Amino acid sequence: MIIVYTTFPDWESADKAVKALLEERLIACANLREHKAFYWWQGKIEEDKEVGAILKTKDELWDEVRRRLKELHPYTVPAIIKIKVEDVNEEYLKWLVEETK
Amino acid sequence: MIIVYTTFPDWESADKAVKALLEERLIACANLREHKAFYWWQGKIEEDKEVGAILKTKDELWDEVRRRLKELHPYTVPAIIKIKVEDVNEEYLKWLVEETK
Amino acid sequence: MIIVYTTFPDWESADKAVKALLEERLIACANLREHKAFYWWQGKIEEDKEVGAILKTKDELWDEVRRRLKELHPYTVPAIIKIKVEDVNEEYLKWLVEETK
Repeated sequence: MIIVYTTFPDWESADKAVKALLEERLIACANLREHKAFYWWQGKIEEDKEVGAILKTKDELWDEVRRRLKELHPYTVPAIIKIKVEDVNEEYLKWLVEETK
Repeated sequence: MIIVYTTFPDWESADKAVKALLEERLIACANLREHKAFYWWQGKIEEDKEVGAILKTKDELWDEVRRRLKELHPYTVPAIIKIKVEDVNEEYLKWLVEETK
Repeated sequence: MIIVYTTFPDWESADKAVKALLEERLIACANLREHKAFYWWQGKIEEDKEVGAILKTKDELWDEVRRRLKELHPYTVPAIIKIKVEDVNEEYLKWLVEETK
């Protein structure tokens, strides 16, 4: 199991991308919440409201999730970050494996 | 040190479970915030407000935290996810080790 | 690439520390949001509103980020937690490397 962390410019694009990944069985679950982002962009420090998403899926789906999320994403340079899950309770892993392709 | 990520259906169950883990010295600290969850459940994509929790504890307590959290948790299939901490500042680790059993 | 997770007592101290790290090119991006924290402190379980920050930077800058964040931080015992990023999309990594020193 892995966690994929990504950030969207607004709720509309976040909901849309996340629902597509779910419908295509590329992820089993997503947790979304707003944050304030500070980042370097074209020589200036920008400040924006964003929607951050924690996606939960199988390790084997990482390449496909990354490629599909890139297509669905409104940003030119999205952050698509893979975090390893070192362990997880058995019943959750079983559910996650069943709900993804 | 490890991070344990879990999600609750509401603030009441989140506060209760997290306080029990603290009182039993199974974790040193918890950070809780609301999010919107999308997930597959019994053939449908569900959408819910949840409370996500980041718990901080020692690696040696993982088995006990997982078992105890499962008992305290209102979900049939909770997510109890272990993330490895690669490094941490010395004074925080010292505090965390002292505050957990 | 790594993620650094830290928590501040309020928006003012969070914004100030994060902007300093950006201006010094020690991080490329920060995501900040409020949470409720429960933790052991001097024999009691405390409950506080905090601002949690996810910082994104290069692995090579970890020591410097940890030291500088400790200086900038209002807490006596801040949490400065390093999480390994197992993989990330190429265009984001390229941007991150260019925007940090």
